[in-house]
Amino acid sequence: MERLLVSWKRLCASSRILWFVDINLRGIAQVMFQDNPLTGAFFLAAIGWGSYAAGVPQVAIAGLLAVVVATLTAQWLRVDAAPLASGLYGYNGVLVGLALATFLAHGPLLWVYVVLGAVVSVVAVLGTAQALKPWGVSALTFPFVITTWLLLLATYGFSGLTGTALPSGSVVVPFQPYEQDPLQLVHLVQGVFQSVSQVFLKASGVAAILLLAGLAVNSLPAAGFALAGAILAVATAHFFGAESDMITGGLLGFSPVLTAIALGTVFYQPSWRVAAYTAVATIFTVITQSATNVALTPFAIPALTAPFVLVTWLFLLPRQCFDEAPAAAARPAKNSPT
Amino acid sequence: MERLLVSWKRLCASSRILWFVDINLRGIAQVMFQDNPLTGAFFLAAIGWGSYAAGVPQVAIAGLLAVVVATLTAQWLRVDAAPLASGLYGYNGVLVGLALATFLAHGPLLWVYVVLGAVVSVVAVLGTAQALKPWGVSALTFPFVITTWLLLLATYGFSGLTGTALPSGSVVVPFQPYEQDPLQLVHLVQGVFQSVSQVFLKASGVAAILLLAGLAVNSLPAAGFALAGAILAVATAHFFGAESDMITGGLLGFSPVLTAIALGTVFYQPSWRVAAYTAVATIFTVITQSATNVALTPFAIPALTAPFVLVTWLFLLPRQCFDEAPAAAARPAKNSPT
Amino acid sequence: MERLLVSWKRLCASSRILWFVDINLRGIAQVMFQDNPLTGAFFLAAIGWGSYAAGVPQVAIAGLLAVVVATLTAQWLRVDAAPLASGLYGYNGVLVGLALATFLAHGPLLWVYVVLGAVVSVVAVLGTAQALKPWGVSALTFPFVITTWLLLLATYGFSGLTGTALPSGSVVVPFQPYEQDPLQLVHLVQGVFQSVSQVFLKASGVAAILLLAGLAVNSLPAAGFALAGAILAVATAHFFGAESDMITGGLLGFSPVLTAIALGTVFYQPSWRVAAYTAVATIFTVITQSATNVALTPFAIPALTAPFVLVTWLFLLPRQCFDEAPAAAARPAKNSPT
Repeated sequence: MERLLVSWKRLCASSRILWFVDINLRGIAQVMFQDNPLTGAFFLAAIGWGSYAAGVPQVAIAGLLAVVVATLTAQWLRVDAAPLASGLYGYNGVLVGLALATFLAHGPLLWVYVVLGAVVSVVAVLGTAQALKPWGVSALTFPFVITTWLLLLATYGFSGLTGTALPSGSVVVPFQPYEQDPLQLVHLVQGVFQSVSQVFLKASGVAAILLLAGLAVNSLPAAGFALAGAILAVATAHFFGAESDMITGGLLGFSPVLTAIALGTVFYQPSWRVAAYTAVATIFTVITQSATNVALTPFAIPALTAPFVLVTWLFLLPRQCFDEAPAAAARPAKNSPT
Repeated sequence: MERLLVSWKRLCASSRILWFVDINLRGIAQVMFQDNPLTGAFFLAAIGWGSYAAGVPQVAIAGLLAVVVATLTAQWLRVDAAPLASGLYGYNGVLVGLALATFLAHGPLLWVYVVLGAVVSVVAVLGTAQALKPWGVSALTFPFVITTWLLLLATYGFSGLTGTALPSGSVVVPFQPYEQDPLQLVHLVQGVFQSVSQVFLKASGVAAILLLAGLAVNSLPAAGFALAGAILAVATAHFFGAESDMITGGLLGFSPVLTAIALGTVFYQPSWRVAAYTAVATIFTVITQSATNVALTPFAIPALTAPFVLVTWLFLLPRQCFDEAPAAAARPAKNSPT
Repeated sequence: MERLLVSWKRLCASSRILWFVDINLRGIAQVMFQDNPLTGAFFLAAIGWGSYAAGVPQVAIAGLLAVVVATLTAQWLRVDAAPLASGLYGYNGVLVGLALATFLAHGPLLWVYVVLGAVVSVVAVLGTAQALKPWGVSALTFPFVITTWLLLLATYGFSGLTGTALPSGSVVVPFQPYEQDPLQLVHLVQGVFQSVSQVFLKASGVAAILLLAGLAVNSLPAAGFALAGAILAVATAHFFGAESDMITGGLLGFSPVLTAIALGTVFYQPSWRVAAYTAVATIFTVITQSATNVALTPFAIPALTAPFVLVTWLFLLPRQCFDEAPAAAARPAKNSPT
């Protein structure tokens, strides 16, 4: 593996095109905090398979187009070379592309929207990184969330763009207690895998396995925390009595998966105390996911990864409680450009 | 009084248990910015009486459980000793416990929720304090508000937890002008007292008197500003034609009471200019309370003390206008841990 | 022109009253970032004409009253002399006055509201400037937006104040594709002019011409970017299929006009790269205006200039990308008091 990456690096140094491919693959890998083109290739395969299997190949194309546009925009804006090469200007772009093509109907204006969203995502990355500088925390996927929310909300005022998978708006109403459909183990296992694949807006077990493999080739702890986070999230959602379809569809688990990777392996040095802290954060991300779903009901837009961003920021800020971990100070720089 | 506190301090130094009791009493007292265990005992009596009188003893138990869990969590997170000893990690916890047990139906999952909320409230205190460091303003009750809002919103997605006193959701509609029920003086007096007791989510005159007594034993100005703030709030709400039931129930007055204590006695050095500035802020807190109630209508959750937090932050930031007061620089440190 | 201003300055230095008039005229001019009393006089004429033509003279009076109250409040709060003299404490006040009198029904409590709003707008200016200090970006019209939103929302809880031009609340529903009424050039031209005049909440071509003239006497580039921003906004809104009435009424264009002036001429040094960057921001402000309109649907309040504030902050933060422009560091200080 190591040797493979070394020879790939040599190839990239000699070819302007491969160098550009490398940046975009790393951009895709950074969605789950990995700085590795091979991980990016696995993730791209997961996106491709998930889109193909669901009969929406345009979603994968939109994601790919968006990450390329985002990288070009970052170059035009003359960003720093190191974070650019690590893919830190691309991961929000790819998510914007995937989300727009997932939630909006196919059509020419969709592609204008994808390009515009990718361009703005880079400005949002730069702006968020600058805004967060006083606290030294990472932008996470906030640029993706804010850009996509604005673009999706705006479509309700435009006749040229229509939703295809957007939730419908209503005021908040109490949960209707339904015939408690006893979830079977197979459903819970499905929920765990789809929690992983929903990070890329896919409901596919194959995509989940590709994603976990992509994590494992770069970081076994990341793959472990992703899986553990998904299991804990599904268990928590089931414990509080969330809707069965949401649990098995992974819709309450993708944000907790990201929280678990971020707190457990990226920003804090692993330890038992950190693992316990990460578990509390992961459970609270399930609560926050449910809360955000509810809070967005009147607006008819999806929560995206906002719960992950909110809870991870909240649990990253009290960093001094874990400052025996030198990693805490060092790693965020990797993920927060400029 | 002084001597009583001195001997209490000596007792606490000799007993680990009394020391722990002391911290938790101060935590309850800090809801109204007082660092005094006797004040905390008065406040606890007010909570106990208010819960007993309303036939909901579990509310007081939830508040007590939450403050204890919050203190233990703070110790586990190895927070600084001085703010811990002053109760600054506990006041948000006690409010989370009271609020959850007030708005949600009794049941086993409620207690899981109270413990989880108390744990997260401490992370939120640490995170908010860190987030506000660049401006040197206090976290106030923001950690309580954000934690409770998320937990309450999430219940609309869980069949295991149901609201019992939550407002019902609807879109915003114009105020229906009703038969102007001429409020009598007795109602206004009731409104003043319940504005004080609603700081602890109680509608009880006895609780209000216990709270004012608790303030008075530590700070006469604090008791004075609390009462004056309540009177000004009730008068303002009546002047603009707010709903009579909300006025007499103290539901437009508890945030202004906190604004008046905070600006008038805690963060600024008392003077005529400060008193006038505090009066404007108190009046504007009534406006903001009404605005927040309206803004939360579609979400079916209560405003809690968000209006107090918002207005007090707004009026604390332009501190330089009052920097003849050396207190301004010194006191906030007391209330903003780390 | 220059000589006129010099002799005006001499007059102001000799008369306390003219000095006060000068500050308030500059306050009105600062709504569009100009520090020039003559520009303020043009803008005041535009406000006066627009109000008179629409049969609502009280709107102009409320704007004038509010700017005077704001200036007096700033003096009472002992703000710094230089930003005070440049009108930086007045531009939010005048907008608060105009907006309250535009959206609320005439009556005695309206005037209490205008005075209270003007006083609070100054606290909000000081607080926002302090809050934004770590990033060196300007408060823009955020103090106006937050103050007016709170005051308008609160009226839904008060029988003493009723809306007259407030939108009605509903949940978000998909855009109803309607008979595409082919907009004619004359409508688009009307949309361009009303986009300019809606900055002061007016729908009037004459007011627009007075505003452009007022900009031109102080800064030809500002007038040019305002006009170009309005044209680009109307074209973008039409391209995405926004409602015809909103386009011709200038309701999707006033925020983009401000974005174009701010990014193109105030905070960045003009260049082709800056012009392209400003164009992207202007287009995205149209999206954000539509998104904000949609997001505020359940709350039944208008978006005001929130989209301008949000997008301009976002596009100002990555300043290092344009730091060949020394203006970037110098100008904001002018607009951000303290």
